[in-house]
Amino acid sequence: MNRGHVGQSPPRNEDHRLLTGNALFVDDVHLEGMLHVAFVRSDYAHAILHGVDTSAALERPGVVAVITAEMLGDYWQPGPLLVPPPPVEGLIFNQASQVPLAKDRLRHVGEAIAMVLAESRYIAEDAAADVIVDAEPLEVAVDLEAALLPDAPVLHPQLGTNLAAHVVQKHGDYDKAIEGAELVINRRFHYDRGAAAAMENRAVVARWDVRAEELTVWDTTQAPIPIRNGLARMLGLLESQVRVVAPFVGGGFGPKIMMFYPEEVLVPWAAIRLGRPVKWVEDRQENFFATTQERSQIHHAEMALSRDGRILGIRDFFWHDTGAYDPYGLTVPINSQCTLLGPYDVPAYHSEFRAVFTNRTTVTPVRGAGRQHGVFVMERLLDIAARELGLSPQEIRRRNYLRSDVFPHTFQILFQDFAPLYYDSGNYAPALEAALDIVGRHTFRAEQEAARAEGRFIGMGIVSYVEGTGIGPYEGARVTIEPSGRVRVATGLGTQGQGHYTAFAQIVAEVLDVNVGDVNVVTGDTREFGWGTGTFASRGAVVAGSACHESATIVRRKVLEVGARVLGSTVDEVELHHGTVRVTADPSRAIGFGQLAGHANPLRGAVIPGTEPGLEATAYFGPDHGSTASGVHAMVVEVDPETAIVRIDRYIVVHDCGKLINPVIVAGQVQGGVAHGIGNAFYEQLIYDEGGQLLNASFADYLLPTALDVPRVEMAHRETAAPLNPLGLKGVGEAGCIPTGAAFAQAIEDALPHLALEIREIPLSPSRLFELLQAAGPAAARPVIADESAIAAD
Amino acid sequence: MNRGHVGQSPPRNEDHRLLTGNALFVDDVHLEGMLHVAFVRSDYAHAILHGVDTSAALERPGVVAVITAEMLGDYWQPGPLLVPPPPVEGLIFNQASQVPLAKDRLRHVGEAIAMVLAESRYIAEDAAADVIVDAEPLEVAVDLEAALLPDAPVLHPQLGTNLAAHVVQKHGDYDKAIEGAELVINRRFHYDRGAAAAMENRAVVARWDVRAEELTVWDTTQAPIPIRNGLARMLGLLESQVRVVAPFVGGGFGPKIMMFYPEEVLVPWAAIRLGRPVKWVEDRQENFFATTQERSQIHHAEMALSRDGRILGIRDFFWHDTGAYDPYGLTVPINSQCTLLGPYDVPAYHSEFRAVFTNRTTVTPVRGAGRQHGVFVMERLLDIAARELGLSPQEIRRRNYLRSDVFPHTFQILFQDFAPLYYDSGNYAPALEAALDIVGRHTFRAEQEAARAEGRFIGMGIVSYVEGTGIGPYEGARVTIEPSGRVRVATGLGTQGQGHYTAFAQIVAEVLDVNVGDVNVVTGDTREFGWGTGTFASRGAVVAGSACHESATIVRRKVLEVGARVLGSTVDEVELHHGTVRVTADPSRAIGFGQLAGHANPLRGAVIPGTEPGLEATAYFGPDHGSTASGVHAMVVEVDPETAIVRIDRYIVVHDCGKLINPVIVAGQVQGGVAHGIGNAFYEQLIYDEGGQLLNASFADYLLPTALDVPRVEMAHRETAAPLNPLGLKGVGEAGCIPTGAAFAQAIEDALPHLALEIREIPLSPSRLFELLQAAGPAAARPVIADESAIAAD
Repeated sequence: MNRGHVGQSPPRNEDHRLLTGNALFVDDVHLEGMLHVAFVRSDYAHAILHGVDTSAALERPGVVAVITAEMLGDYWQPGPLLVPPPPVEGLIFNQASQVPLAKDRLRHVGEAIAMVLAESRYIAEDAAADVIVDAEPLEVAVDLEAALLPDAPVLHPQLGTNLAAHVVQKHGDYDKAIEGAELVINRRFHYDRGAAAAMENRAVVARWDVRAEELTVWDTTQAPIPIRNGLARMLGLLESQVRVVAPFVGGGFGPKIMMFYPEEVLVPWAAIRLGRPVKWVEDRQENFFATTQERSQIHHAEMALSRDGRILGIRDFFWHDTGAYDPYGLTVPINSQCTLLGPYDVPAYHSEFRAVFTNRTTVTPVRGAGRQHGVFVMERLLDIAARELGLSPQEIRRRNYLRSDVFPHTFQILFQDFAPLYYDSGNYAPALEAALDIVGRHTFRAEQEAARAEGRFIGMGIVSYVEGTGIGPYEGARVTIEPSGRVRVATGLGTQGQGHYTAFAQIVAEVLDVNVGDVNVVTGDTREFGWGTGTFASRGAVVAGSACHESATIVRRKVLEVGARVLGSTVDEVELHHGTVRVTADPSRAIGFGQLAGHANPLRGAVIPGTEPGLEATAYFGPDHGSTASGVHAMVVEVDPETAIVRIDRYIVVHDCGKLINPVIVAGQVQGGVAHGIGNAFYEQLIYDEGGQLLNASFADYLLPTALDVPRVEMAHRETAAPLNPLGLKGVGEAGCIPTGAAFAQAIEDALPHLALEIREIPLSPSRLFELLQAAGPAAARPVIADESAIAAD
Repeated sequence: MNRGHVGQSPPRNEDHRLLTGNALFVDDVHLEGMLHVAFVRSDYAHAILHGVDTSAALERPGVVAVITAEMLGDYWQPGPLLVPPPPVEGLIFNQASQVPLAKDRLRHVGEAIAMVLAESRYIAEDAAADVIVDAEPLEVAVDLEAALLPDAPVLHPQLGTNLAAHVVQKHGDYDKAIEGAELVINRRFHYDRGAAAAMENRAVVARWDVRAEELTVWDTTQAPIPIRNGLARMLGLLESQVRVVAPFVGGGFGPKIMMFYPEEVLVPWAAIRLGRPVKWVEDRQENFFATTQERSQIHHAEMALSRDGRILGIRDFFWHDTGAYDPYGLTVPINSQCTLLGPYDVPAYHSEFRAVFTNRTTVTPVRGAGRQHGVFVMERLLDIAARELGLSPQEIRRRNYLRSDVFPHTFQILFQDFAPLYYDSGNYAPALEAALDIVGRHTFRAEQEAARAEGRFIGMGIVSYVEGTGIGPYEGARVTIEPSGRVRVATGLGTQGQGHYTAFAQIVAEVLDVNVGDVNVVTGDTREFGWGTGTFASRGAVVAGSACHESATIVRRKVLEVGARVLGSTVDEVELHHGTVRVTADPSRAIGFGQLAGHANPLRGAVIPGTEPGLEATAYFGPDHGSTASGVHAMVVEVDPETAIVRIDRYIVVHDCGKLINPVIVAGQVQGGVAHGIGNAFYEQLIYDEGGQLLNASFADYLLPTALDVPRVEMAHRETAAPLNPLGLKGVGEAGCIPTGAAFAQAIEDALPHLALEIREIPLSPSRLFELLQAAGPAAARPVIADESAIAAD
């Protein structure tokens, strides 16, 4: 079956709505009598909360209610974790879920204390400032390693420790591996925090229709179905009485899949309690405090190698900062643990992490979701080892890639899907060579030399990664051919810009032989499709796309059966042709899908026993394992050793995400991911002071890369089909940002070989790189200016 | 399986919402920026429409738009009939569907000419009065028989005739039958118009959400899914972009299943066009003109009998008034044609009808839907024949009942479901005897004599009927056990007071062994369930109830399978027990349904291949034939021959609707049906003058029976299980009103035997009965007062 829809890049079905300003975002929901919310949030990183005085706020005209923890009655039970920890032997996991409004204790700056509901957001904000919080500051635990020391202040007294989790996973025998090692590299690496910085902040609107007994919640969530289920449980409603709509969302990137943000349950709760619709839209400053973040880990990693550069084993101890609460479980550090192994043949692996509560905003997955850390550690170890062994970075990688004949390949450690880490397919070495060809295998070093002669320092970084994508448990889709002949596809996951309206339409159009523009896709509305999990872990296209394929295939069979019956023929004698069924031997005998839909749903007579009415099917896809994407990123940078400014001249991505549904969408994902990765690597860092105060909670202070900072990515596709799903798909949503930090570090070192830099931290902000360059000694070409203020004025 | 839920009468699940005023009716929908509608309607029964001047109306402050036919552009294509005519040989059918707003010609008083949209209904009504309609009156066709005469004015010039349809159906050979007849009865019967007079009038609210690309329509319709489909077709939307909600509705009775009322498409059209929500609620006067009506038929019927009172054959020519348009097809006259045969062995039948366009409001089914006419004709013929033959009314029926061993029994005429008229099961004669026992087989005549001695005239009517119920094509249901352990049932048909929320819950509770109160039923929301037809033809419980049963049975199997797996057992070793699955041999090993629902929908791991997540199933039920309910109604009346006032002293119903799901709901349906039937028989008649003007378009002039006029019905149940559906159900929604007229006529005649009355018309209003009594001669006991004004003052 090849109708040319899959693999093409038709105009996106969603673009008309987006470009005409008619796409629905949560803030577009305006309801009669709607109240607006502002939150009173903690100024303290850690404090005892003695009381909240709302009296002045309540006197302000236009204020309808000020909700505090006491008014909520018993706290909602936090319920099962969205992602419970995997069943690893000896695993310790201490759960500390956030509560809707703080009671007794404040654990991070920005934690919600009270909810003000007023006739306008203006009034609500003013009234929030009227609320007096009586709190007694406590010592803070901000430093990741110090937080586990015996005298550290404990965030959750009932646990008696800041240890959120301790997990040891092993593959092979590392102790034995190191016995035979000829080189052992041992370093400390630090990967620090960033924000997801989606264009749209979070937002929730809720309406309780007492007469319809229906709660409707518009939510920027990436997981509308779990949100619906959780709201039903917490609010004592049937799941089917709750409709959660995740409409167009201006970027997800992970933090929008929390279970639950306080605001997500408080807004619906208040709508029911007050009998009026309620809206809350997060402002940017709130987003810096109240939306989850990621990336703080400290690794003490050791690699044992043979003299010829073969990895014998790796041992990694790491500390993972989970922030003040750990409602999301261990997905991020488990990902770090698993992704570290990369495309390499690692016979022995000992990985042990401690997740740690700190007085900082809660950590949950942000695009990459822990994978960056693993890749950074592995790639840095290889670079350092290569230097020790006198090998090029490329050569040491070549010597360690898994061979193309080892798949499926399994490591004896559990992945986030609870199954042993499983590489379904791949072919790693050729990607490196392809990337080198693009960079200029035979020309780059000469260019580098020539630039050096001009006093310019250019360097190349080239690194590899493997990404587990497309995990279960499942997604579903319903495909319907309507009497108009157009096709409707409904699936349960939400969309935050991934192009699902087009990609899923292409899959269905391919199966049914209709135009992509005639396939109308709806996502993220639990009333449309109520089974599934959500958009995360680069799984949308793989899992929901496969469900679309399966449903369309069943509908195709129905079309052939009903068509054959109506045409007085047999299924074997008919075929699909551009929205019709026709008799293969006599194409003049044909019937359009729309008319056929009428035949399949008679208004008189009976439906044929054992059949369902209409041309519709619902199917589910639940893969046993995900599919592992992989790739090589190469980066060419020019570093100004005087100012520590780095310009990224070229960025090359050779990636393998299996079969491409839509090359332009894939390219968009990669380009966006690289921008995200460049931000994480060079610009973005959340700076907490020792008191737990975030110092750069605005876009004036928190640097995002601009279009000028991100080059157009040069891409090459490789396709290793995924054997576990019908279209051979692998996820691509996160790949772009995963290896960027590692490539960046290698490239800077390569640009300045005379400094013998060894970069062991990310983000590497311009000022931090300046410090590192300073420490490394005077620049080769020009003197380093020691006066930082001069740089700041540059 | 007998858990005692089916066959009981638990408290109704819907009553809490209804009794606390929290049930959603369409008029309860209030939306931000909503516009209100008033219609400019025709004052003419028949006219050429030259023009509509809206300029004055548009100048009124608060008026947003005045829509006329010209502004609609091309009329919407009327589309396929909801119920096309059955494939009877030689059938003539001339379709004349109404248009949203009149153009060129007006065909009945009350036809919509212009739609005024304003900020309030008050303004809209005032502005409607400002609209100037330039029309030129035409001769009218009001009289049913005269409308087919050559010189009658023709409503639809393109047809060249007022003949809407001509249908001949035959069973056996009537010409041969009459050759051997020893008695031939030939009479003209007239059954005139009434209104459905639901407590709630029609109402439509529509909202177009341009960003969600969703049209939501709240509509009092009985058929939300066909309305959704039709709206999508006419407005160029996907069916899945249209959500039709038929919430609680204050009575349906048939007229709320039109396709389409002009208002039903104009209100959504305006909401899209103007970008604001629009509401229209029909007022009572509009309802008399603009909501469909029923019942005008004239029969010329002939019965051939043997001397011993056996029916040899029946020939019936009848004229059916279809009003100004015939969008609903031929359901009503086809029902009359088929239902006439009743529970009797009729070897030969020739039935021929003409449906006729008249300048009166369009006719579509009203509770009974043509069945009354057939029963009235048959029962009257039997009564007249009995009198001729010197038999009692009971005896002639006994001699003609179909025997209990003839089922399934087929007549060679097509029913409204396009299949030959099919009696699935029945046992008729015992119902008559049961009714006689209740009336007082051995005492009634003595009571009658005793009353007569006191100058009181009491009489008994006792008649039979068979009602085809529960026809296809199909309905569906989705049953879900939620993680709370509660059960959700969704089905596509709407509810207008039938108790579906309880009856369907009982069916599902029976299968799943849960409490009826834990089963939450939702109906009439196309977003909840989008396949099905609607609530009509006494089919809800039979067809949708059977679909609920089927779905619940599949869920039950899933519960046992998942339960056995979780309990480490086999399906054969476990059983359901009050919301749990337990090991039969060790009841301590048990798991609740709610917990089981979680096991069936894992958040990690994969769904088991070939299964669906959750404890949910969707199933459809499409019977090959309907199931035929039957019964005997007996009525004891006292007639005042002086005033023509009739008091109904007793009303006995012995009915067979198969297995009872909920006896109290069945009793309510019967009681309500009888009240409806009494109204039709005695009080309610729409009086059109010769110019086509309706003279009694208000409840001040159109008489409805009050609670004082309707006795408490004495009921007895007989259960002849229906073999074609799993629970053995037959419909009961219309039965109460079908034979009432026939019983009423017989009872009055029986009360006044000395007058030798022969009642051949219904309704028999008090004043019309007075005329008949006058014509029959002086009263036996007291003189009839000839002065009508004296009666009116009585």
